[in-house]
Amino acid sequence: MIRVAICGGSGYTGAELLRILHHHPEIEVTAVTSEKSAGKKVTDLFPHLVKYNGLAYVPMEKESLLSKADFFFMALPHAASQEAVSFFYQQGKKVVDLSADFRLIDPKIYEEWYKTSHNYTDTLKKAVYGLPELNRKAIRKARLIANPGCYPTSAILALAPAIKEGLIDVERIIVDSKSGTSGAGRKADMAISFCEVNDGFKAYGVGVHRHTPEIEQALSLVAGKQIFIDFTPHLVPMDRGIVTTSYAKLTKTTNTDRVIALYNKMYSREPFVKMLEPGYYPNAKHVRGSNYCFIGARVNDRTNTLVMVSSIDNLVKGASGQAVQNMNIMMGYDETMALEGLALCP
Amino acid sequence: MIRVAICGGSGYTGAELLRILHHHPEIEVTAVTSEKSAGKKVTDLFPHLVKYNGLAYVPMEKESLLSKADFFFMALPHAASQEAVSFFYQQGKKVVDLSADFRLIDPKIYEEWYKTSHNYTDTLKKAVYGLPELNRKAIRKARLIANPGCYPTSAILALAPAIKEGLIDVERIIVDSKSGTSGAGRKADMAISFCEVNDGFKAYGVGVHRHTPEIEQALSLVAGKQIFIDFTPHLVPMDRGIVTTSYAKLTKTTNTDRVIALYNKMYSREPFVKMLEPGYYPNAKHVRGSNYCFIGARVNDRTNTLVMVSSIDNLVKGASGQAVQNMNIMMGYDETMALEGLALCP
Amino acid sequence: MIRVAICGGSGYTGAELLRILHHHPEIEVTAVTSEKSAGKKVTDLFPHLVKYNGLAYVPMEKESLLSKADFFFMALPHAASQEAVSFFYQQGKKVVDLSADFRLIDPKIYEEWYKTSHNYTDTLKKAVYGLPELNRKAIRKARLIANPGCYPTSAILALAPAIKEGLIDVERIIVDSKSGTSGAGRKADMAISFCEVNDGFKAYGVGVHRHTPEIEQALSLVAGKQIFIDFTPHLVPMDRGIVTTSYAKLTKTTNTDRVIALYNKMYSREPFVKMLEPGYYPNAKHVRGSNYCFIGARVNDRTNTLVMVSSIDNLVKGASGQAVQNMNIMMGYDETMALEGLALCP
Amino acid sequence: MIRVAICGGSGYTGAELLRILHHHPEIEVTAVTSEKSAGKKVTDLFPHLVKYNGLAYVPMEKESLLSKADFFFMALPHAASQEAVSFFYQQGKKVVDLSADFRLIDPKIYEEWYKTSHNYTDTLKKAVYGLPELNRKAIRKARLIANPGCYPTSAILALAPAIKEGLIDVERIIVDSKSGTSGAGRKADMAISFCEVNDGFKAYGVGVHRHTPEIEQALSLVAGKQIFIDFTPHLVPMDRGIVTTSYAKLTKTTNTDRVIALYNKMYSREPFVKMLEPGYYPNAKHVRGSNYCFIGARVNDRTNTLVMVSSIDNLVKGASGQAVQNMNIMMGYDETMALEGLALCP
Repeated sequence: MIRVAICGGSGYTGAELLRILHHHPEIEVTAVTSEKSAGKKVTDLFPHLVKYNGLAYVPMEKESLLSKADFFFMALPHAASQEAVSFFYQQGKKVVDLSADFRLIDPKIYEEWYKTSHNYTDTLKKAVYGLPELNRKAIRKARLIANPGCYPTSAILALAPAIKEGLIDVERIIVDSKSGTSGAGRKADMAISFCEVNDGFKAYGVGVHRHTPEIEQALSLVAGKQIFIDFTPHLVPMDRGIVTTSYAKLTKTTNTDRVIALYNKMYSREPFVKMLEPGYYPNAKHVRGSNYCFIGARVNDRTNTLVMVSSIDNLVKGASGQAVQNMNIMMGYDETMALEGLALCP
Repeated sequence: MIRVAICGGSGYTGAELLRILHHHPEIEVTAVTSEKSAGKKVTDLFPHLVKYNGLAYVPMEKESLLSKADFFFMALPHAASQEAVSFFYQQGKKVVDLSADFRLIDPKIYEEWYKTSHNYTDTLKKAVYGLPELNRKAIRKARLIANPGCYPTSAILALAPAIKEGLIDVERIIVDSKSGTSGAGRKADMAISFCEVNDGFKAYGVGVHRHTPEIEQALSLVAGKQIFIDFTPHLVPMDRGIVTTSYAKLTKTTNTDRVIALYNKMYSREPFVKMLEPGYYPNAKHVRGSNYCFIGARVNDRTNTLVMVSSIDNLVKGASGQAVQNMNIMMGYDETMALEGLALCP
Repeated sequence: MIRVAICGGSGYTGAELLRILHHHPEIEVTAVTSEKSAGKKVTDLFPHLVKYNGLAYVPMEKESLLSKADFFFMALPHAASQEAVSFFYQQGKKVVDLSADFRLIDPKIYEEWYKTSHNYTDTLKKAVYGLPELNRKAIRKARLIANPGCYPTSAILALAPAIKEGLIDVERIIVDSKSGTSGAGRKADMAISFCEVNDGFKAYGVGVHRHTPEIEQALSLVAGKQIFIDFTPHLVPMDRGIVTTSYAKLTKTTNTDRVIALYNKMYSREPFVKMLEPGYYPNAKHVRGSNYCFIGARVNDRTNTLVMVSSIDNLVKGASGQAVQNMNIMMGYDETMALEGLALCP
Repeated sequence: MIRVAICGGSGYTGAELLRILHHHPEIEVTAVTSEKSAGKKVTDLFPHLVKYNGLAYVPMEKESLLSKADFFFMALPHAASQEAVSFFYQQGKKVVDLSADFRLIDPKIYEEWYKTSHNYTDTLKKAVYGLPELNRKAIRKARLIANPGCYPTSAILALAPAIKEGLIDVERIIVDSKSGTSGAGRKADMAISFCEVNDGFKAYGVGVHRHTPEIEQALSLVAGKQIFIDFTPHLVPMDRGIVTTSYAKLTKTTNTDRVIALYNKMYSREPFVKMLEPGYYPNAKHVRGSNYCFIGARVNDRTNTLVMVSSIDNLVKGASGQAVQNMNIMMGYDETMALEGLALCP
């Protein structure tokens, strides 16, 4: 049994970590922090986490947490995460950081997109980007994981194999993503109040969303050259789930069947990636609450374009589930431990 | 390992049985039937049940099923269930019937409300009404369980303790229930098409819903006298969940704290009933996907009325979860086996 | 052409007044106030009100507004409304107040439920409760209208005829209401954020909601005696709409057809009340955006209970539409002016 | 007053025609047809159309309809529309056809995508594609209008000015559209049942949707050369509304402000097209129930791409509203007659 702390546990990703870890036989949650909700019970904020009625939020007193936990999930806001992550890492702890603070290798790009400086570039150098399907070996040896963003997870899993295979023109990649509202976090904000979101649909952050450089970085590493993409996120009136539709010009003659076969081969040992058959495309509802990424593909020979449609639950494979998957890899547990749950549908 | 068959597995309760049983260490699903979908894979209908991609629907050939399974979950439509349930029961199998066919003790009442005759009254006499909180002892010894309806489960759990304690006037019970749309089943029906339900709300079946006599029967048995209730179901634009608001005149002087204390005492050993603290009332979202029933209570001393608000997931505690709970009791397993999952929220 | 000011125009009822008044041939909106949004254009907050792109919010400077408008719609928060309403009224203006501040005749009851004192009891004595179906004559002569609350409008229209006719036992009235989320207003509040409301359902304010005494006051006036009711509001994952299910014991022998005939007679000249035929009950979706109240009725002879189901759009007949209806009556316009729009469905 | 018939009035576009025409001072609806619902009242199917309680569906007896109406809105299914439209047109009537049967100039392309032959190619030659922003002059003189599809309306309005101006590379246009569920029509179909759609999101018909050639035809005519596009439709859990995100490579150096200025100039006299300011993108909710098309634009200079986001109500500007707009133009009425209504929001 290892002792696990969750720093920043009053948001949706924190709650989701608790939900998933409830089923993990090898760990025990020994601390969960929140400044605002310190003193409150987890079940005061999240009545559905009924099994945690003995657990209360504490302030994030780092020194004190050192003795309480061996493994740290960090679910703090961007920028606020830097210092705390670095602290626990430098003290020898294993850390999975769900913020964006350690995802971008180049601190200048971080500073450009997040409008804040990176003050822990030594620690940054140690961080491994925690997308198991690309980086499993490095994750196994890492002590600090930068857990990928939700949109990037969906886009990278859909595009990396095609790029790796040299199948597409990397100059003209379009990533059109649609996310449920939990992606905006748990907060009092009129823009995500029910009456503003329900029965509506909109684009936002067109061309300026912070996940853009994260997707570009991962795809560039696969391609071996710098890639710039067009990325447009949209807000869907649903709780959870992302569907990402990606477009790229083909550089080789191929067809839908062969693309799917290629992906099936590349992902053949992946426990959480599932390719759909030709003509089928994923519904966010079919992965809700699970750690799966479902992917459909189509070659449009009228335009010589590859269209990939990928779907994940933004709070699971796009955040807390992937964080647990990374922990399992780091600790040498069965990679699917606590993540076997099937999606809840309808 | 016991071998389990699901008869009528192409509806939402069938799919939910598969989802839940996936986590059950003591059983193996050896057959799932559907006339319409025979030959199709489970994952053709329910892509989220990705772990069942080796399982296909078969027609319900009863003789053949006898050798394939020891335990039968019957999720057939009302009336269609009678004969099949009786057959498996008479052949010595253990059966949990999710239809209404074996819930009403008096076949005349069944015939009056379901507009069809009951042709297996011998089997009917053997059936035990499978609400563990009321009938656990009988369930333990039973071979045929009539699994309760969704609305009745929510209403009976909210009202039975007050009636048992003689706290309320049983002549004036109002049960006002609100259900998610999955309660209507999985079917092509314009009345439950998205555009008819979304962003709307309506009452239906006012005073004539078939769950009325089921609630009345259970409450009458507790009261020791015949009770008639007013029951109004409503359709909520959500997938799952029931919230039932029940009203009754108090016959004794009491207050909210004492009522909650009484309920807490009566349900103290129940793994799936949770009383909320004074001033709190359940949200269907907090039990979504779980087997819990959350209950809030309030004494209105301006009107001398007891108001109970109870919530369950209609597909879990209101159907498939309760069915598995009944199986666990019948088989002597830990009652919570495969039902430990916390609700998925948001 | 009269000049109309809207005080407190940045909420949903303010926006809805603008939407409706856009179609009114006899009026011109000359001012709309908001402290927080002063200087912003109406279309900055409400892009759908595209025809108002020349109108900007101003602070509520009362003296200055006196010269700008003849008729005042007051959509300020409760308590904040008292002084401003009284001011414009005392200055000789015609006023429709959408807040609760002038609805309760007895200032003690106001103070008990709203936890604030009433400091303008002289003005309070002049206010007419603006439910046209009950008070049309008084509204015609009034200069100050207390526009009814949304829940009360739905409940009173459903119950007043039965009480007037002596049909029901007024000691045992249950009012179980369900409202869309716009009833909570336009604000940054986690409790009404999308992910907290969507795909869920809950009761709130059980027995303590402030609309309770308003319903009781109106029904008591009809009955000629003090009535206390049980009132439970619930939150529905929809934008707009209320469905209220009311229960009362019958004091006379009757049946559904006769009750509907009675209501049809009583409401025969009402342009916005529509009785449904036996066996039909209203869906909030069918009145969305319109000023209608749809009502269904059923006599349950098993329990000798009258069940009434009524539905309105909380922002229209439950607020801004009724406010315009009141203005039309006060000004001698055709009562349906600007309110002819049919519901938007789906 | 002209007499109007609606053929195929039991679907959502038929109901929406009735809702809109209720406000039209120059017309009278004299007949509405439905084979399935013949004999039923309009309000039996659509209780919200309460003002039409005197109107009943009749079978489409063409000869008989000739004497009843001067102007025909045809809302029949694709293929079924050909013969009836041709009949009324050849008899000298004015016709707006909401089906796809007369939209594609080349009958071979029609046959390829709709898998049925076109048997009225003489009539087809007379049809004018009814997008007023492109074809107002021709519409004014036409007697047969092919009313555009919902997706095409949103895409063409977003892309035509850029193409006309030679601003974009027409070889690489991506049209990624998202539609509410009413786009699928009013029918009993499990794929659009509430529990399949709610709280989910999916792509469908990737690369094969029938609106593809319609968009291509309109854009090709603007470009003066054949264009092929990638078009992907998605299903959003909302009733109404389309948001289309279009991407194209820029052929000239420009920026967001200049693109918006260009569009503002081109659409300066259009009553129903509204360009948003830089950094703003439309929400389907802000046009719900109105005939507006809202458009946002952004130049991404990192990738040299133009991103256009456009939104309409698929049942209004995408169908029935545009049909009435076309009628107004054909008849010489004020183009906005009966279409002045602001969107219903929230």
